[in-house]
Amino acid sequence: MPRLEVNDAENEIGNHAQALALAASTLHVPAYIVMPSISTPSKIAGTRSHGAEVIFSGSTSTEREAVVAEIQAKTDAILVPPYDHFDIICGQGTTALEMEEQYRALVSDKPHLSTPRCGHHPPWGRGLNAGVATFFSGKPTRVFGAEPSFEGADDCRRGLEAGQRVESVKTLTIADGLRTPVGFLNWEVISDGTKVAGVFAVTEDQIKAAMRLVLERMKVVVEPSAVVGLAVCLFNEEFRRLVEKEAGPDGWDIGIVFTGATLPLRQLGSYSPDAETSIQG
Amino acid sequence: MPRLEVNDAENEIGNHAQALALAASTLHVPAYIVMPSISTPSKIAGTRSHGAEVIFSGSTSTEREAVVAEIQAKTDAILVPPYDHFDIICGQGTTALEMEEQYRALVSDKPHLSTPRCGHHPPWGRGLNAGVATFFSGKPTRVFGAEPSFEGADDCRRGLEAGQRVESVKTLTIADGLRTPVGFLNWEVISDGTKVAGVFAVTEDQIKAAMRLVLERMKVVVEPSAVVGLAVCLFNEEFRRLVEKEAGPDGWDIGIVFTGATLPLRQLGSYSPDAETSIQG
Repeated sequence: MPRLEVNDAENEIGNHAQALALAASTLHVPAYIVMPSISTPSKIAGTRSHGAEVIFSGSTSTEREAVVAEIQAKTDAILVPPYDHFDIICGQGTTALEMEEQYRALVSDKPHLSTPRCGHHPPWGRGLNAGVATFFSGKPTRVFGAEPSFEGADDCRRGLEAGQRVESVKTLTIADGLRTPVGFLNWEVISDGTKVAGVFAVTEDQIKAAMRLVLERMKVVVEPSAVVGLAVCLFNEEFRRLVEKEAGPDGWDIGIVFTGATLPLRQLGSYSPDAETSIQG
Repeated sequence: MPRLEVNDAENEIGNHAQALALAASTLHVPAYIVMPSISTPSKIAGTRSHGAEVIFSGSTSTEREAVVAEIQAKTDAILVPPYDHFDIICGQGTTALEMEEQYRALVSDKPHLSTPRCGHHPPWGRGLNAGVATFFSGKPTRVFGAEPSFEGADDCRRGLEAGQRVESVKTLTIADGLRTPVGFLNWEVISDGTKVAGVFAVTEDQIKAAMRLVLERMKVVVEPSAVVGLAVCLFNEEFRRLVEKEAGPDGWDIGIVFTGATLPLRQLGSYSPDAETSIQG
């Protein structure tokens, strides 16, 4: 059962490429990863380090699809798209299982870290992951979505307001994993009304401040897209009011998944508050 | 029992300041941290975030000691120096306990990660931590030291060769936590001949390459001093030959402690292979 992945050039995530390469090597299955030839070297190296064969294509979707068709014809590979697919949604939903386990272990070990109101049923701020929302549907845990607001990247929030999915987005938000509109199947889950309790948006500066906090204090390398949920919890006034109204001053226990740390190293320096000075000076 | 810390300005670590502040707040004991007023803002903020009172001094040791004396007179605070002290050595030695626990858990969970020769007795490449060496003395685990070679920063390696401690070092190695000579008490342990099996040195470029690997693949923020042990394992030819000679092609299971991630964010960008181009361009 060979596998094949098409990396979305506009999306520029590269996390799916690396995750799929790792999954394939764990299962001893060959992986063919189609990447635009303009991909960053660290992304290519990361994918190859898991044993996948990287095949380059042009950066338009037509060019990529041509290369994919060629490889599928030659190898009988299965296409595994990066997000708009039931298997991917279900697979990402297993994050919620891990999170619930880790949360229970943490609270049982350090009960003082939990608010008394919440007990073992935390609401979880989370990116646009339909799988997590599906896992928690019908449970007391609430799931929220988080998006950048820059140049209309908050397509999901806007879509919910307008009552229909925003199909096209053109944004250069630094949260480059969230530049494309929410997938069709993901939208079905998010707009369902019972699974996601709200979607909130944050500015570029708020995302950068959340990056700084994670890099400087948690000492974890993350990409901007990974901290959008944290930025909502820290800075979104509408979300703050909602928590205050529903949970009172104690608030909720909140879980946030940091997904993705694919970025050129030099970019890390740009999250420094004095980055402009030090780079230009 | 109030506590007091003097941060070594020449050393510029700041990890001791933050660790002590956290320890004091965990034990509900007040902490007074004396720091040179030229300390980086992230270091000051990190120390304050644990609830310690930061008191500024000039950057010479005379100026610092004057401020320390003043605070001790006022508060009866106990002086906790950053490394050359029995309590600190013993405290740092508990790292070895954690490491041994984690190693056993890892190998029992994933036995294929261990080399058959080593079983449960791994040698551990490690920085100049006399506590770790003391913990493992008399056990099958061997402890090695690692240093930068730039401008004579390998004072410990040179001291062992010459048969006496190098008392003064003037180096600007990027591993700024290792710019001062090894402490007197630490030297007693390291030069004892039975506790540390060897000390190896690496170049600035080797340290930078190790930094890149940890940042890009492990996604952990570390400072240069933290990866000197890893750089030895990756690049030091003398160490490689030793392993080959004593353990054969299977090698050893090696444990490395990453200690310290106190650095200005903008510096992270400088570990990019294309840093010069991107900063100047």
